[in-house]
Amino acid sequence: MSRWRPDARERLEAAALELFERQGFAATTVPQIAERAGLTTRTFFRYFADKREVIYADDQFPALVRSMFADASADLSPIELIVESIRRFSNEELEHQRDKIRRRSAIVLSDPGLRERSLRKRAEIAEAIRDGLLERGVPARTATLLADTTANVFEVSLAEWIDADDGRVLSDLVLENLAVLRDALDGARHVAHGG
Amino acid sequence: MSRWRPDARERLEAAALELFERQGFAATTVPQIAERAGLTTRTFFRYFADKREVIYADDQFPALVRSMFADASADLSPIELIVESIRRFSNEELEHQRDKIRRRSAIVLSDPGLRERSLRKRAEIAEAIRDGLLERGVPARTATLLADTTANVFEVSLAEWIDADDGRVLSDLVLENLAVLRDALDGARHVAHGG
Repeated sequence: MSRWRPDARERLEAAALELFERQGFAATTVPQIAERAGLTTRTFFRYFADKREVIYADDQFPALVRSMFADASADLSPIELIVESIRRFSNEELEHQRDKIRRRSAIVLSDPGLRERSLRKRAEIAEAIRDGLLERGVPARTATLLADTTANVFEVSLAEWIDADDGRVLSDLVLENLAVLRDALDGARHVAHGG
Repeated sequence: MSRWRPDARERLEAAALELFERQGFAATTVPQIAERAGLTTRTFFRYFADKREVIYADDQFPALVRSMFADASADLSPIELIVESIRRFSNEELEHQRDKIRRRSAIVLSDPGLRERSLRKRAEIAEAIRDGLLERGVPARTATLLADTTANVFEVSLAEWIDADDGRVLSDLVLENLAVLRDALDGARHVAHGG
């Protein structure tokens, strides 16, 4: 009989989340996760390099950005391109798995090492957006500033979406927050041009 | 005779920067730094908790933000307040020590651990700005978005300033970059309001 299980990855993920929540991320070991999933430690390492990877398992954001930017219409402005990509990514990949994302987020917040990694992750997301813009010929300065800013806006929106219990849609929150930010920055217009 | 030296901190900093540059951050030890400065290891630890602290020694940014925000006129808009504070901070604290900041920055970029720490540092700077805005009654969402965004703009501007050899002034670069970002975000205005 083959020991291959088509649902091994999902079982390992579910077991890991439960253990992280119940006993903490730091106190949970790979053998415990494997045992709870009814699988071997060896099987665990076929899917994940370490227990941190379970949290970031389906984090293919940089690759996704690249393919969405490549698909997008050539006449979109840089910010339209980003907004469209975030909208698609949110609606197609994130909207239906809010509970899982919320649980992961709580685990990340509870562990200093994972929080550190989140900062690096945000930097990687910004870099993926920036590279995508550069490939479309956007000037470097604009690409860097827009990428950092929209990665931030996305992160802030994601946190609001996770906390919200009123059925708000992530991509709407992103648009709202972009509008709030634009209005706040507009207050400096005369400072910038009068200096 | 007292062994207290009024210039001990500066000598330790200068010795550390030279060694970090010559042999790398990771390969440099505290005893080597102390020896090069003509001081004891014990004296080193009177000024710095570890060798990383030498790089971030005079990094009082959160405290500075707090005092600048407290000093500022009550009728400034949030973004005007931030721009004014960055302008003062840049002109009074940074503009005259560009070479030292440039050297430190090169060391940070060369070491993965220091790069990690820079991400955390940027997050702390954003948090300091956010707290300062909240204390002045700015709504939480605006405070978070503006703080993250301006911390990014400041960081991008600082990197340009370090690289520039044409005598450009840091606070001018910050204003330029804010204007570039505003214009880029404006491209999404109809997307945000038309959705």
